[in-house]
Amino acid sequence: MPETPHGNGEETKSVTTSATEFKDLSKFVFKRILNVNSKTKFICAEGSLQDQEGSAVLVLEKKALDEQDLQALCTKSSELQKLFINDIFHKYNCYPDPHLNGLNATIIYPATEKLIQKYASQVIHIVEETPALYDSLTLPHILKTQNSLEWVYNILDHKSEQERIVFEDDDEKTGFVLLPDLKWDGVSVETLYLLAIIRRRDIKSLRDLTGEHLPLLKNIYQKGIKTIQDKYKLPKSRLRIYFHYQPSFYHLHIHFTSIQFEAPGTSVERGHLLSSVITNLEAYPFYYRDATLCFTLPEIDPLFAQYKAEGDF
Amino acid sequence: MPETPHGNGEETKSVTTSATEFKDLSKFVFKRILNVNSKTKFICAEGSLQDQEGSAVLVLEKKALDEQDLQALCTKSSELQKLFINDIFHKYNCYPDPHLNGLNATIIYPATEKLIQKYASQVIHIVEETPALYDSLTLPHILKTQNSLEWVYNILDHKSEQERIVFEDDDEKTGFVLLPDLKWDGVSVETLYLLAIIRRRDIKSLRDLTGEHLPLLKNIYQKGIKTIQDKYKLPKSRLRIYFHYQPSFYHLHIHFTSIQFEAPGTSVERGHLLSSVITNLEAYPFYYRDATLCFTLPEIDPLFAQYKAEGDF
Repeated sequence: MPETPHGNGEETKSVTTSATEFKDLSKFVFKRILNVNSKTKFICAEGSLQDQEGSAVLVLEKKALDEQDLQALCTKSSELQKLFINDIFHKYNCYPDPHLNGLNATIIYPATEKLIQKYASQVIHIVEETPALYDSLTLPHILKTQNSLEWVYNILDHKSEQERIVFEDDDEKTGFVLLPDLKWDGVSVETLYLLAIIRRRDIKSLRDLTGEHLPLLKNIYQKGIKTIQDKYKLPKSRLRIYFHYQPSFYHLHIHFTSIQFEAPGTSVERGHLLSSVITNLEAYPFYYRDATLCFTLPEIDPLFAQYKAEGDF
Repeated sequence: MPETPHGNGEETKSVTTSATEFKDLSKFVFKRILNVNSKTKFICAEGSLQDQEGSAVLVLEKKALDEQDLQALCTKSSELQKLFINDIFHKYNCYPDPHLNGLNATIIYPATEKLIQKYASQVIHIVEETPALYDSLTLPHILKTQNSLEWVYNILDHKSEQERIVFEDDDEKTGFVLLPDLKWDGVSVETLYLLAIIRRRDIKSLRDLTGEHLPLLKNIYQKGIKTIQDKYKLPKSRLRIYFHYQPSFYHLHIHFTSIQFEAPGTSVERGHLLSSVITNLEAYPFYYRDATLCFTLPEIDPLFAQYKAEGDF
């Protein structure tokens, strides 16, 4: 969590302390919307607190509905207001008992400018990376800014998360570790999400792959599928197996998710199916060395400024 | 809308007529969950109506939040129940005035078995279509089951939707029509969605494309981008331009959406970026004739049964 602007321990009288509990939303004074998602029913605003100095952020998101919620809602207290009736279809607005229809609310106070930026919606751009632009812009940027891979090496060396490993092949050339992604609860197959991390330390991303890596890729494909089939009973045809480009860390890894789960980063501008990567490399061993690969960048990313200077934006 | 089982006009006394208006949800008797989406806060159940024969379907979805909603919620009537306070982060359950926090409710009654099936969550599979499987399974299936393309020809011939056309190039080889997708409101650039439909009638899908079609594809890419830049002020770097494979109709068309909009069918198992298609065909003119292409099929699709008979599921 980001540090507060009052890190020196001194507090002025006009600042609500962190421990102040709010009883309702009346104290939040709206200034502007930072982000909205009408699909996930999420909204986030910047504002302030009544009679207080400094900025605050309010985040609201409607709660999901499960079977228990639905059953609890089927009572007289769930008021219906007719919109229209057409043949067998009845459309209503429904206003249930407030305690059966909550939102998740987060108030952040005091909120620094940096934190407000983090909650503000980011303008995203798509760029087309030719092999030449990879060499001149992307690769130097990766080498300069990449985070430590210590946590990856700790997993490979059994120094951490050893108990989380679902499958392991320790061949130095074609070996890998398979473990649940941190975002997965490890139980619900509908949202299944595992990560295969290769043992070799010399492949950064999809861009580095050539025909010589086919034994590695096929090994992960076959043994990953078999492990998930055996352990979670989800067959190959219900798995989305893919790379991210750009990845979030530059040590080659592959995502295994349930095809029914809309995991982050599965869209066409970021995902590359392992089976397509394998057939591409079989037909064209230098496909990824020679390809123009698209990926997205937030406008505030320094790499975007470099791409913008090169291209027609 | 699907037909009712009471299409003969006769109604028995025990069946609520379509015109019966519900005042609340107390009449719905729960039987089983048909579908849940915790991301979009959607749930759908099969059941019946109290003292009535036959099945009913109840669909509930939380409403999205906009700026007006958020401002209206910042009052004393939005009760907060503390979950935890950690430094500057305050987490609460929020229970607003019911009329500021509605759901969309649909009751379908009477509901046929076919309609219940339609609302039930579909098990989805991914299949790998080699060129041989395209010829032996997919193509015969398309030819046998495809819907009429009359509505597409009506647009191309200016017999319908003429006023919706945003741009047109009537070259017989490289021409196309660009118009807003029916799902788009035509206003909000955040959810921008247009469709380019080619004039030629001899290309069914991505699978048919070869190097000889590069002038057509580049023409759509360049003129589509220019039109959207001029008319909607959204530059090329903020557009996702892609094919669906399989498409929903077999007359070649290309989707233009805002990169920020998670439109349906943009995931890696269905989307193919136009810029990648162009660079693939430039480097390998028969890339799509020779490729193994993945796509998804619902388990109930007859084509899935054929793929299942061929492969290892």
